[in-house]
Amino acid sequence: MTAPRQVFYISDRTGLTAENIGEALLNQFGNVEFERHVYPFIDTTEKALAVVDKVNKTAEQFGDRPIAFFSVVNDEIREIIKKSNAFHINFFETFLGLLEKELNVEATFAERGHHGIGNTKRYDARMEAVNFSLSHDDGVSDKNLQEADVILMGVSRSDKTPTCLYLALQYGIRAANYPLIPDDLESTDLPRMVKPYKDKLFGLTIQPERLQAIRHERRPNSTYAKIDTCRSEIADAQNMFKRHGVPFTNTTDKSVEELAVHILQACKLKRRF
Amino acid sequence: MTAPRQVFYISDRTGLTAENIGEALLNQFGNVEFERHVYPFIDTTEKALAVVDKVNKTAEQFGDRPIAFFSVVNDEIREIIKKSNAFHINFFETFLGLLEKELNVEATFAERGHHGIGNTKRYDARMEAVNFSLSHDDGVSDKNLQEADVILMGVSRSDKTPTCLYLALQYGIRAANYPLIPDDLESTDLPRMVKPYKDKLFGLTIQPERLQAIRHERRPNSTYAKIDTCRSEIADAQNMFKRHGVPFTNTTDKSVEELAVHILQACKLKRRF
Repeated sequence: MTAPRQVFYISDRTGLTAENIGEALLNQFGNVEFERHVYPFIDTTEKALAVVDKVNKTAEQFGDRPIAFFSVVNDEIREIIKKSNAFHINFFETFLGLLEKELNVEATFAERGHHGIGNTKRYDARMEAVNFSLSHDDGVSDKNLQEADVILMGVSRSDKTPTCLYLALQYGIRAANYPLIPDDLESTDLPRMVKPYKDKLFGLTIQPERLQAIRHERRPNSTYAKIDTCRSEIADAQNMFKRHGVPFTNTTDKSVEELAVHILQACKLKRRF
Repeated sequence: MTAPRQVFYISDRTGLTAENIGEALLNQFGNVEFERHVYPFIDTTEKALAVVDKVNKTAEQFGDRPIAFFSVVNDEIREIIKKSNAFHINFFETFLGLLEKELNVEATFAERGHHGIGNTKRYDARMEAVNFSLSHDDGVSDKNLQEADVILMGVSRSDKTPTCLYLALQYGIRAANYPLIPDDLESTDLPRMVKPYKDKLFGLTIQPERLQAIRHERRPNSTYAKIDTCRSEIADAQNMFKRHGVPFTNTTDKSVEELAVHILQACKLKRRF
């Protein structure tokens, strides 16, 4: 067995961008094992030199030089990092120079970057969306439901809650959710609470076998977790979506990230970056 | 006033990686206004041609060619997109070729990339962390609190909840939180519920003026929102953190993303990618 290839993420800020890029790239090498070292907030020459030392020692120890993804705004620190014995993927230098030329504008290197609090008003809107989504989780309240950007609807354990929270945290979308309980599913009408907001509804469905596994984990051997229960609830829910023209998607093979993008697109919701 | 520069995000999958990179870069140009067009799931030649048409028409309309960030795995579709009249930032081609050479391995172009559900077990752990964080929000329950990776502690409205949810969603960290109420703050001891887990505690503090503004928004003109109340609660909380050696940070100028990275680092928590 070969040793995992060593990977460093280095940044003078949070390093979240470097991490995002790095993980997206490493995921394209399914057969290679990687071991990660994360160094955010490397904002002094002392810290930078210590990281270089760590990279160099790792290179010696493993034979193969590490892969270093870095996004460093400060010139002096970037120059120090670049001297480490690693294969460098230098995110800022690679693209920023090209963009400066194209825009014919110098980069401002805003002290607060992408992940900083930046525009306080926009940030507050995101946090407000989180609060809204929490207080409209699982159909607990119809207060101010008219302010929702979207209302997710689906049977119990179909991933409504994490998807709502992701939409709120990431995009500032006010996402409520409503659980379809057996009473709702027996009716041919839309549930009373959400009926006035038909245009905001989006349905989630799921493979019965997957739903059974999730429910079994929570309440082993309950009627709730029986495959027949799962099958019939899902069939009823899908019939409801179709009858009322509610757009819906199957969550089985989708992550919350993918679900969020699907919902934004289907409901034509504006991302609040 | 000049028209905003047009920006396209194009992907045959979710496009989240392209968006992350693009936004990080655009944020470095604080003085330029951008207008964004997002096209995820461009996975057929028909869709690709339609996007190219849209890009070209936008170029004509605005004079300046648009900036197109794209991450397209499919070769045929990528070649189509590349023919559009735009300044292309082609994330995959730029870095993947370099990495293939360095690793001496061909990219597998996993059909499920970074944001796919990928490893189901790892994904389930993230969703479990979301459930854990929700059921341990605001000190509502000490059931299984020993399973927490971290317990955030702070006065009311100091950003505990969104930070916990972000830690859970993004990193699979089981993050509980406990609100310091006046009774807790009057005591010299740690609150009874969290005392057994002293090593998992992390404190959040905030500028009194910012706390006042947030509280005023929720309960205008209440004692709770008075600057004196905010000042004294924050001072008591900080004294508690110092007395018991609880690490803490000030949330005032930090986004949840930054807070999460700080907490991971301070508590030496392992990211669960």
